[in-house]
Amino acid sequence: MKNIVLVKQLYRESEKFIDKTVKISGWIRTIRNSKSFGFIEVNDGSFFKNIQIVFDDTLENFKEIGKLPISSSITVIGTLVETPNAKQPFEIKANEVIIEGLSNSDYPLQKKRHTFEYLRTIAHLRPRANAFNATFRVRSLAAYAIHKFFQEKGFVYVHTPIITGSDCEGAGEMFHVTTFDLDNIPKTEDGKVDFTKDFFGKESNLTVSGQLEAEIFALSHRNVYTFGPTFRAENSNTARHASEFWMIEPEIAFADIEDDMELAEEMLKYIIKYVIDNAPEEMEFFNKFIDKGLLDRLNNVLNSEFAHVTYTEAIEILKNSGEKFEYPVEWGCDLQTEHERYLTEKKFKKPVFVTDYPKEIKAFYMRLNDDNKTVAAMDLLVPGIGEIIGGSQREERLDVLKSRIKELGLDEKDYWWYLDLRKYGETKHAGYGLGFERAIMYLTGMSNIRDVLPFPRTPKNAEF
Amino acid sequence: MKNIVLVKQLYRESEKFIDKTVKISGWIRTIRNSKSFGFIEVNDGSFFKNIQIVFDDTLENFKEIGKLPISSSITVIGTLVETPNAKQPFEIKANEVIIEGLSNSDYPLQKKRHTFEYLRTIAHLRPRANAFNATFRVRSLAAYAIHKFFQEKGFVYVHTPIITGSDCEGAGEMFHVTTFDLDNIPKTEDGKVDFTKDFFGKESNLTVSGQLEAEIFALSHRNVYTFGPTFRAENSNTARHASEFWMIEPEIAFADIEDDMELAEEMLKYIIKYVIDNAPEEMEFFNKFIDKGLLDRLNNVLNSEFAHVTYTEAIEILKNSGEKFEYPVEWGCDLQTEHERYLTEKKFKKPVFVTDYPKEIKAFYMRLNDDNKTVAAMDLLVPGIGEIIGGSQREERLDVLKSRIKELGLDEKDYWWYLDLRKYGETKHAGYGLGFERAIMYLTGMSNIRDVLPFPRTPKNAEF
Repeated sequence: MKNIVLVKQLYRESEKFIDKTVKISGWIRTIRNSKSFGFIEVNDGSFFKNIQIVFDDTLENFKEIGKLPISSSITVIGTLVETPNAKQPFEIKANEVIIEGLSNSDYPLQKKRHTFEYLRTIAHLRPRANAFNATFRVRSLAAYAIHKFFQEKGFVYVHTPIITGSDCEGAGEMFHVTTFDLDNIPKTEDGKVDFTKDFFGKESNLTVSGQLEAEIFALSHRNVYTFGPTFRAENSNTARHASEFWMIEPEIAFADIEDDMELAEEMLKYIIKYVIDNAPEEMEFFNKFIDKGLLDRLNNVLNSEFAHVTYTEAIEILKNSGEKFEYPVEWGCDLQTEHERYLTEKKFKKPVFVTDYPKEIKAFYMRLNDDNKTVAAMDLLVPGIGEIIGGSQREERLDVLKSRIKELGLDEKDYWWYLDLRKYGETKHAGYGLGFERAIMYLTGMSNIRDVLPFPRTPKNAEF
Repeated sequence: MKNIVLVKQLYRESEKFIDKTVKISGWIRTIRNSKSFGFIEVNDGSFFKNIQIVFDDTLENFKEIGKLPISSSITVIGTLVETPNAKQPFEIKANEVIIEGLSNSDYPLQKKRHTFEYLRTIAHLRPRANAFNATFRVRSLAAYAIHKFFQEKGFVYVHTPIITGSDCEGAGEMFHVTTFDLDNIPKTEDGKVDFTKDFFGKESNLTVSGQLEAEIFALSHRNVYTFGPTFRAENSNTARHASEFWMIEPEIAFADIEDDMELAEEMLKYIIKYVIDNAPEEMEFFNKFIDKGLLDRLNNVLNSEFAHVTYTEAIEILKNSGEKFEYPVEWGCDLQTEHERYLTEKKFKKPVFVTDYPKEIKAFYMRLNDDNKTVAAMDLLVPGIGEIIGGSQREERLDVLKSRIKELGLDEKDYWWYLDLRKYGETKHAGYGLGFERAIMYLTGMSNIRDVLPFPRTPKNAEF
């Protein structure tokens, strides 16, 4: 509609509009009225904060307005006036209130507070609730910050495939993709599923990572990144696991693990700064109502140089810490969240890269160090959450890679193209993965992954 | 690696580097040498163009360099010198050439030209071939242009779900997503597939569109967009169909079909301009080798005001055109590509919006016009391709929407949350979809969708 101004504009460029006639459209958040005048808080979707509308009985439809249910949509024409003695900086004195769409009186999001659990059951309405309104705006800004960061550095965004016929990663259980009629699955003569008759002519799954394909592009376009959905068919119902989530995987050529860590640190700081700068109202809300230490913690990250420690050193630190851990610490063990949090929260009090993990607990494609025992892996641990990024320098030596594949009982044939990359002009290269939802939880303080995904998919749940 | 300069920097900021020592790393594209000196064309992935290296027998490893196979990777330290009489503006006189990774002599991308069909079989190497190198860089830039365009307008990026338990769209065949062992599918007592035992507890599929979910967010965040993968399990092997492709779907509240068309026109021009400005070398290449009229056509779009015509008017124009069409034209028929191209290429000679289609040939959610016969739909047709965008104003009136659902034999219960949106503060809203690959074909002149997707998925093909 023409001539409508967004509430965001009113807040960000108020000097342009004060004492002028403005026209806004939005949804009623609260309404209260007396005999001759009333107030409406309107949210127009463009901005976290509402705008207050004052209306009085000089309006023809004064009575009708007073009875509007919460969430009805209206268009208001009026004058924007400053309100020096009120909470809000200004309000609109309405000359006209046009009713766009009536809401029902059984609107589920009344003023009273609802639990996040309940709100998940009405995922089609919860984006209107403050915490979710803020979360999904921050999610959008963080996604853009990531693109902006990489694009400004000349990185190429690659859409790695979602449906994949290869099972190279071996990182957890996968979802099958099929067009078979499940009631009537074609079989071969010896009674097995005849995948040659399926849509892709072979067994197909949803991807668990775009890394291996991103490596293809790092060796043609040098610095690249993926940003897309990935999937895990794991039957785990925790606050940190979803079956469908988004991941960012940069991959850089002519680069080693040091370059990789530099990039990760710079990226994380960039995202944090971008969100704090571009969503100050939302971040204030999170800091006040969701997670009281949030802004301090994020500002601390912005202003720290991240620490570096090898896995071997970390194990020593943990052993000598005097802490009682649930899981015992020995060289060779995987670090648990309790260990990670001790390192980043108590020992270093800032983000810390742990590097050079035992090869036994890391993936086949990570570059073997000269000690023959560890690989050039790096995990970034941050206060309040633990691991947020995992990466490595990749094994570029064809013979070493082949023997690692053999060692792990994998089949070389499945990796023909991945090995080809090592045959035709291999170079040092490295990369890492950032789970997007984990980053959003970190940025907002929201503690359940179901509340940072617009429509979370978890075991037994694919609603909306 | 430290102190390395990208070839892109050499080209874009050459004045900073001329007559200075520079260090670059990249892959050998061509090499030729005589007894005492030689030339190497190196591409470093950061830039479409190569940099020429001159090396001579003062180098220790002169002989070794001369024998390097194509695609070997090297690091070169030398002086950047201007070459006023040569094709290229400058070259590097090498002081040192370090061999990073040897390529094999059976490298498939030798200098001779390969067919695009053959290159599809080596999708792990084809991003190194010029046409694909350029296509995938343009793809990345276009994706970023889309984010930039919407974010600068304050739109919220929404990740609509990939796996969906609802079948609201009904737009074509879907891929099933399951964790069932296909050899052993659980059945209910009456012999049917027991989906309650599947991962999500119900039948689940890959999404065909995020529109309905985007509407949820338009009614909370006002102006939103999706940009994600979508799927069609159609067994069609054409140059314009893929089973997995990316789509952009903006959705705007308090907006009608006019606003929708304005947004689509502005967006398309923005993307074109961004790509022309940011990939001049690539676009020149496409214009010269792939599609000779490309830049003229795109510039024409940039400088036109798009035309508008109703479907009813378009039918009259086509009937009176004197053209012989393969498919006859009558009011009520779907427009075929031949009709679309006549309208945009011969009649209007620029992009044209066709609006107000018969309700019978459009989806249930499009807003019914007052004539009760047509809906507020719009398709954007562009010269050289036909339809590139399809959109509509959405039906916001609960009663009309319900009767349309009934009319089409759909089940109201499947749309409970979609109908709820009309109950709780409905407003005018509108949106459209842009197929990303079709846009890339349009921007580059590449004529097969398999060549603008990094790893295309089509019937019987999910390699890499």
